[in-house]
Amino acid sequence: MVSAAIVGGSGYTGVELMRLLATHPEVKLQAVTSRAQRGVAVGDLFPNLRGHLDMVYCDPEEASLEDCEVVFCATPNGTAMRMAPELLRAGCRVVDLSADFRLRDSGVWQQWYGLEHACPELLDEAAYGLPEINREAIRDARLVANPGCYPTSVQLGFLPLLESGAVDTGRLIADTKSGVSGAGRSADTATLLCEAGENMKAYKVSGHRHLPEIEQQLRTVSKGPVNLTFVPHLTPMIRGIHATLYAFPRNSSIDLQELFESRYAEEPFVDVLAAGAHPETRSVRGSNVCRLAVHQPREDGPVVVLSVIDNLVKGAAGQAIQNLNVMLGLDESTGLSGPAMLP
Amino acid sequence: MVSAAIVGGSGYTGVELMRLLATHPEVKLQAVTSRAQRGVAVGDLFPNLRGHLDMVYCDPEEASLEDCEVVFCATPNGTAMRMAPELLRAGCRVVDLSADFRLRDSGVWQQWYGLEHACPELLDEAAYGLPEINREAIRDARLVANPGCYPTSVQLGFLPLLESGAVDTGRLIADTKSGVSGAGRSADTATLLCEAGENMKAYKVSGHRHLPEIEQQLRTVSKGPVNLTFVPHLTPMIRGIHATLYAFPRNSSIDLQELFESRYAEEPFVDVLAAGAHPETRSVRGSNVCRLAVHQPREDGPVVVLSVIDNLVKGAAGQAIQNLNVMLGLDESTGLSGPAMLP
Amino acid sequence: MVSAAIVGGSGYTGVELMRLLATHPEVKLQAVTSRAQRGVAVGDLFPNLRGHLDMVYCDPEEASLEDCEVVFCATPNGTAMRMAPELLRAGCRVVDLSADFRLRDSGVWQQWYGLEHACPELLDEAAYGLPEINREAIRDARLVANPGCYPTSVQLGFLPLLESGAVDTGRLIADTKSGVSGAGRSADTATLLCEAGENMKAYKVSGHRHLPEIEQQLRTVSKGPVNLTFVPHLTPMIRGIHATLYAFPRNSSIDLQELFESRYAEEPFVDVLAAGAHPETRSVRGSNVCRLAVHQPREDGPVVVLSVIDNLVKGAAGQAIQNLNVMLGLDESTGLSGPAMLP
Amino acid sequence: MVSAAIVGGSGYTGVELMRLLATHPEVKLQAVTSRAQRGVAVGDLFPNLRGHLDMVYCDPEEASLEDCEVVFCATPNGTAMRMAPELLRAGCRVVDLSADFRLRDSGVWQQWYGLEHACPELLDEAAYGLPEINREAIRDARLVANPGCYPTSVQLGFLPLLESGAVDTGRLIADTKSGVSGAGRSADTATLLCEAGENMKAYKVSGHRHLPEIEQQLRTVSKGPVNLTFVPHLTPMIRGIHATLYAFPRNSSIDLQELFESRYAEEPFVDVLAAGAHPETRSVRGSNVCRLAVHQPREDGPVVVLSVIDNLVKGAAGQAIQNLNVMLGLDESTGLSGPAMLP
Repeated sequence: MVSAAIVGGSGYTGVELMRLLATHPEVKLQAVTSRAQRGVAVGDLFPNLRGHLDMVYCDPEEASLEDCEVVFCATPNGTAMRMAPELLRAGCRVVDLSADFRLRDSGVWQQWYGLEHACPELLDEAAYGLPEINREAIRDARLVANPGCYPTSVQLGFLPLLESGAVDTGRLIADTKSGVSGAGRSADTATLLCEAGENMKAYKVSGHRHLPEIEQQLRTVSKGPVNLTFVPHLTPMIRGIHATLYAFPRNSSIDLQELFESRYAEEPFVDVLAAGAHPETRSVRGSNVCRLAVHQPREDGPVVVLSVIDNLVKGAAGQAIQNLNVMLGLDESTGLSGPAMLP
Repeated sequence: MVSAAIVGGSGYTGVELMRLLATHPEVKLQAVTSRAQRGVAVGDLFPNLRGHLDMVYCDPEEASLEDCEVVFCATPNGTAMRMAPELLRAGCRVVDLSADFRLRDSGVWQQWYGLEHACPELLDEAAYGLPEINREAIRDARLVANPGCYPTSVQLGFLPLLESGAVDTGRLIADTKSGVSGAGRSADTATLLCEAGENMKAYKVSGHRHLPEIEQQLRTVSKGPVNLTFVPHLTPMIRGIHATLYAFPRNSSIDLQELFESRYAEEPFVDVLAAGAHPETRSVRGSNVCRLAVHQPREDGPVVVLSVIDNLVKGAAGQAIQNLNVMLGLDESTGLSGPAMLP
Repeated sequence: MVSAAIVGGSGYTGVELMRLLATHPEVKLQAVTSRAQRGVAVGDLFPNLRGHLDMVYCDPEEASLEDCEVVFCATPNGTAMRMAPELLRAGCRVVDLSADFRLRDSGVWQQWYGLEHACPELLDEAAYGLPEINREAIRDARLVANPGCYPTSVQLGFLPLLESGAVDTGRLIADTKSGVSGAGRSADTATLLCEAGENMKAYKVSGHRHLPEIEQQLRTVSKGPVNLTFVPHLTPMIRGIHATLYAFPRNSSIDLQELFESRYAEEPFVDVLAAGAHPETRSVRGSNVCRLAVHQPREDGPVVVLSVIDNLVKGAAGQAIQNLNVMLGLDESTGLSGPAMLP
Repeated sequence: MVSAAIVGGSGYTGVELMRLLATHPEVKLQAVTSRAQRGVAVGDLFPNLRGHLDMVYCDPEEASLEDCEVVFCATPNGTAMRMAPELLRAGCRVVDLSADFRLRDSGVWQQWYGLEHACPELLDEAAYGLPEINREAIRDARLVANPGCYPTSVQLGFLPLLESGAVDTGRLIADTKSGVSGAGRSADTATLLCEAGENMKAYKVSGHRHLPEIEQQLRTVSKGPVNLTFVPHLTPMIRGIHATLYAFPRNSSIDLQELFESRYAEEPFVDVLAAGAHPETRSVRGSNVCRLAVHQPREDGPVVVLSVIDNLVKGAAGQAIQNLNVMLGLDESTGLSGPAMLP
């Protein structure tokens, strides 16, 4: 059994990590920290965990993190970058679910996150934790930067198109719709049931923090410049992201369905639907799967990719565990094999 | 008082027409027909109307429709085209909320609706009932084709861009999100709360019936060919459409905010938000308003227009009453002046 | 036109008052105050009011409240009791939508609300604002205590039973279900969409602040002691209260349907459904109606009353306007005549 | 591995059985039948199962049911009673999730279900499948009648009170609130998102089919007559039942908390919360747990028990698997050990 800890376990990413780790056969959770919930039983804050995890939140200082083989950071942005150096020195491997190590350029990070980066020297070392493009680097990484939820859904949808050079990278559009849990568990008027329920709206059209992450990754994949228009929307549901992606083809001779199916044939967590299908977010609720469909509704028009994930699983906690499985040399599906819950 | 009747009043468009007409000061509702609900009190089917409309559903044959000055057809597609000729001969003015008279080309209609059109000779006469582009024709029309819900939200969003020639009409994209009431009140597994709740999905990406209607109208406005990619999505809420529109500008010198504000300065039901704002569907719930915002998130990228309506009001019953007001020479806001309900 | 002001207009009760007053033909809203939103346009905080109320929030000191004929207090508990004396001295009539003047006993008030009452001398003067039992007192009142939402739904359901002495007042049960808007617009983890959505729970079973208010009123009506068990539940919807009331009959000879119908025959806002019917909260959404049905599923068992209201209308803002209409000698339905919105 | 089949696998109980059996280590699903979906891949109807169950719906006649050790009947009421005799003769053990074998009296069954019972001779043999009261009989049963969802939540809440004789069995009240999935997956106007969403209502107050089942069981437990008033409500969520139970105590000396804790100390799927707590339906979403809390808000009033389950798990498919585990001598938690999904 591998010993693990969660730093910052009182949010939705934290509770989802605990839900999934509670049945992971190879991981033993040693500590869960939260300064705000110190002394509170995990099962009191999250009653779904009663009887599954008999643990109490503690301060990070009390958690003997350095004795754990793996530390998950589910902290707000800006925290993991201050803890990572010491954890790495102690020999821990770190999977950071925040944004601290996702951008390679500390200047860009500072511009979007409003803080000076505390350990830019680790940015190059950090492995970007999307196994579908970076499995080898993750395997041996000491530090994994778990991708954002929107970036996961958008990258997996664009990947085959960009790798193959099939589309114009200067006119990419990602129209994305997220459930409200993406905004976290903090008290905020905007995400009250009475504000976000029975309502649909776009937000941050002028610029969302996930844009530079997505562009950095798409540039890497396409080996060239990329212009992406990224419009996120808030949707009245708890879990799920639906990314609708538009890309104008460079030529019309490509078999899109074949392109997607062959690209993901060996991927355990990417499921390409049959031609003409429409994936639903509920088909991945609670599971680590990304379901994709590719369309081209008019010959002279853009390719349309539909990509759905559970933002808390493949978009956060599940992907972190998938990364852990890669790091430990386990089957990638270990602890992640349950089907989604429908209805 | 103008005498009116509703044909096909047992669906969501019907109940919304009745809700709005119940307080319209110039209209007296004489009859509401429904073959399926014949003999049922309106207030038993729709208890919100108890105490407001003391009427009983009857068959169309019993309704003395020919004695009404105005007849609203809220029937399924394919019904109004069989009734309209006789109603017009009897001197009624007809506002058809179905799709029967929206397309000018009967061949295209047949292709998308799967029926031969029963009175193609009326297609030219029918006024397309979007007052913001067609007020004069509506005023004197005997027959008004009330627009579809998606077409209303998409046209109002694209209009200033196409009229001004500001954008490339060969690469238009409309990514639209609709509440479930757009699918109507018929029993259908796909729109059960347990199927459509907590879920997001695209549908009919290969072709939705509202596409030819939108393209016909955009061609008229832009005076040239138009290529639109139209991707509708089902959203877990009851009312509302959020259209997110993408158009690539022909040149970069246009003041988009000014373009939209001046275009709609005199329109009572189009509200252009300040630069940088994001309209919410709930801000128009129950009201006849279309709220718009225009963005251009990157200089080298597309214009992004956000357009919200209540699909049952500006997208159906409210617009029908607005058209009625135009036809009767009333203030367009008559009976439509209540604010939206929020939360 | 009667001049009016709203003190504390940034919450859900405030926005609902504004929505309803925007079309009230006899009231002119002069000022809306909110310390937190001072300087913000009402239409920016609540975009449904754009184009309907061209006002800006101000501090109460800037609002010239003393010049208004009527002041609505939509403030948190504990505020109106500090403002009312001065407003009354200035000649204003006050409708308080908070709990400050609902309980006649200042000691009980202090016990449940945790504050010493600031003007106990007004408690006797304040008219309890449930027109269905207190119309005469409201008519001439300077100060009206608008009832709580639960108390409105529960009283209207129990009233005919207690007035007639038909049931055992020692074993009353009110099992009530409320939409989340009853908790207000304050940022609070418990009412986030992700916490309150897709979830049902009871809360405050050991004692809710509305219990002493209900018991005080039921004692008055029944002219004797009353034991009520009151169990509120949080329901995943925005608006609506469904009260399910249980009372054991003293004898079996009463015609319950007739009792309810005759009691409310003249009431404009209480609608007794036919025997066997089940009222739905959505049938009153946005309207000032209370819909009731009375059942006795087993001869040897309790009477079951089903009572639904919109907590923000008949449970708050609508009832305040009904009280205003009574105070001004207007038809009670003035400004409250729109049907509920369904679906 | 035990071979199993599901008859009637196209509904919500069916898909939930498949979701849970997909990870059950001791069961091999051999066939899933559905006449309506014959030839359809399970993963096409329920895309959450793609990659987990590579099966196609077949007719029952094609399924070789007689070769299966266990057959789950997830059929509409009235079907299992026609199939059970033959399956039993073939040596299968049958777990019926419909209502066919829940009532011991075939006359009462006919009265509530409107059909003559096809095999009344099996009613005595059938073991009522609530392990918490009937574990021994289930262990050796050939035929298990899986309880209804409401009956499960109500019985587990009342059980300690009735077994101990602590309350007046002549005045029991069960006010129950169910998510919409309890109504099944059939197309029905009443359970459309636009009808059941944002709405709360009671239904079948004059008599629900689960009433005779609950009363039969409570009579058995209390060894005497029982009068229960049972009021079910439809709640705008997908999964979950919240039962709020009222019982008047016979004397006041009982330690209710101790009574409940000791009764359920050994039960793997009943979780008694601490005194003063309020269970939430989401805390059991997707899991087989029943969470309970017991209150007595006023000394002279009723005991109030709060009982929550997931209607599709402990109220249907999960309990069926728990029964299977009992029948096979497995640990009762086999295949049922995952925590609930929250949020």
